[in-house]
Amino acid sequence: MARPIRVALDAMGGDHGLRETVAGAAQLTREDNPVHVLLVGDEPQITAALSQQRYDAARLQVVHAAGVCVGMAEDARAALAARPDCSIKVAAALVASGEAQALVSAGHTGATILTAAQTFGRLPGVRRAALAAVHPTEQKHGPKGDPFALMLDVGATVGASAEELVGFAIMGSAYAQIISENERPRVALLSNGAEPNKGTPEIVAAHKLLAALPGLHFYGNVEGLDIPRGTVDVIVCDGFLGNVVLKMLEGVTEVVTDIAKDAYARSTLWKIGMKMLSGDLHQLREMTDWKQYGGAPVLGFDQVVIKAHGRSNARAIRNAVRVAAKAVDRGLVPRITAGMAAAAGPAPTSGPGSAR
Amino acid sequence: MARPIRVALDAMGGDHGLRETVAGAAQLTREDNPVHVLLVGDEPQITAALSQQRYDAARLQVVHAAGVCVGMAEDARAALAARPDCSIKVAAALVASGEAQALVSAGHTGATILTAAQTFGRLPGVRRAALAAVHPTEQKHGPKGDPFALMLDVGATVGASAEELVGFAIMGSAYAQIISENERPRVALLSNGAEPNKGTPEIVAAHKLLAALPGLHFYGNVEGLDIPRGTVDVIVCDGFLGNVVLKMLEGVTEVVTDIAKDAYARSTLWKIGMKMLSGDLHQLREMTDWKQYGGAPVLGFDQVVIKAHGRSNARAIRNAVRVAAKAVDRGLVPRITAGMAAAAGPAPTSGPGSAR
Repeated sequence: MARPIRVALDAMGGDHGLRETVAGAAQLTREDNPVHVLLVGDEPQITAALSQQRYDAARLQVVHAAGVCVGMAEDARAALAARPDCSIKVAAALVASGEAQALVSAGHTGATILTAAQTFGRLPGVRRAALAAVHPTEQKHGPKGDPFALMLDVGATVGASAEELVGFAIMGSAYAQIISENERPRVALLSNGAEPNKGTPEIVAAHKLLAALPGLHFYGNVEGLDIPRGTVDVIVCDGFLGNVVLKMLEGVTEVVTDIAKDAYARSTLWKIGMKMLSGDLHQLREMTDWKQYGGAPVLGFDQVVIKAHGRSNARAIRNAVRVAAKAVDRGLVPRITAGMAAAAGPAPTSGPGSAR
Repeated sequence: MARPIRVALDAMGGDHGLRETVAGAAQLTREDNPVHVLLVGDEPQITAALSQQRYDAARLQVVHAAGVCVGMAEDARAALAARPDCSIKVAAALVASGEAQALVSAGHTGATILTAAQTFGRLPGVRRAALAAVHPTEQKHGPKGDPFALMLDVGATVGASAEELVGFAIMGSAYAQIISENERPRVALLSNGAEPNKGTPEIVAAHKLLAALPGLHFYGNVEGLDIPRGTVDVIVCDGFLGNVVLKMLEGVTEVVTDIAKDAYARSTLWKIGMKMLSGDLHQLREMTDWKQYGGAPVLGFDQVVIKAHGRSNARAIRNAVRVAAKAVDRGLVPRITAGMAAAAGPAPTSGPGSAR
């Protein structure tokens, strides 16, 4: 990353409020990178929180937003309409006006996506934006051996047409190329069987379209087994299925941790055993540590949007901002635009070689 | 179980062939229970396998079926049409004619369901049969503290209407009452949020119907997190979603086991540590041991059908036959019939008290 990249961070979002968002932003400015953070939210509170932190003042700016955040239990649409000056809306406006180049929030997911839809434009050919999520897998991905795979849509909307699933495939492939530096990510549809005729009518139709699409490494269908295995780099599904699957993965992690803790508390042998195993157990724990993932991208808009986990601590916030800056630096939006254009066929004015 | 209960077991089905089916049947006859097994398949092969076993000949009968089983890679419909004398069809015919009272197979799932559909009748009010599966959960279920919850449909068909989802709820509740001896099983729809308006149009409509249904303990919607937690006793979803979710659960189990094995092989500390932990690790292992589940019921037909896992060993086969006998003994089919009738409203000829 050569040039300075400015990221607008919703300082009020997330379960831990601005304690963690401010600490994450401050941490980032102490590291060697060209990222500038615009911390958006209640200025007196942010200033007070910043006074507890070491940070590079030249790379951190506070932008006041008066309105309170959208609560987790609130209806996002009504809350946003009632509070035009809330931090997520002010942060998005900074991106739309060019004062920042990416939006990061750990706040309400629906409010983040809705604000993006109200503030940014959808890219040409994108019928529906998607929320993508990274999840840990047994197999590694790409040349860097990334232990995470991407899945989308995981809940931006319920349901998806065949054409929308194709759009998700193109956007997910572009994101894996940019962030995992994986030049030819394998992309698959999540279905109830590997055969091309398996699945809902939408999936069967999307399979045909993807198989005929140049410039995309389409693997075919994968099944539920392949999610934790990590058979492919990008899994495509509709937002309803993706939401159920992603929450289930979180639940499985919780349950395994609970059982281990419970056994640990009861047994002296466990305590001794766990100590002896701690090196190797680290591998298991890492697989389920979403804090290092760096947030979930909202794909399909003409700006970079990263939704950090609601439970993000300072490190997770820092990672999400870094991912957003990387997506800007490496050209995520132009990459998606090119992918959608290639899928639509060569433009009337371009030669046969231009739409790879 | 007082009276003798006769179960037709497809001896040729399952990945291990008749070695395990014959051993499972033999084991069952050595135990104190009223179950008689009709072992259906190639008589010379079964007789040879039986000669290796101790069994009670008064409770075990061999019924010859000449045709080979449906292969896992075959199209079930074509294979069944070509082999009217294959073991699954002969076994089902024994049940239809009254010579046996339940059908058990560890063979091809599609062939088992299709044979049931071709041989048995659907119960009044049942629009679509469902394949149910038990899965391990953190929370226990019912008065016996059953560590498994039920999910259906897990792949009998793709998709389900609101009315079909209601049918699945009634059938799943009846099965939990019969097999887990759980008088008031909590039944929920799997969705992308707890609110009644969350989910696909089919789920939203089913939620309304179930909330108004007497005689069923409807919990509302649950999310992906609730599957491993075991928040409810019966989870209802369409066959596509259920298939993806169930296979994912299998995949997660595989991955955790693989990582543990891999670490074990590499590290002496692990070997010592694992030995010390073996008592407590047993709890984790048990949670993922489908061999004790006793098979997956196919619900909605006028006969009891249990699909045992393809990888069933003798113990799993024995458990599946025992579950089938229990379902007969405790009246699964009449229970489902009564539930469907109650959902349809009081019959014209019955008084208000008859449709509980």
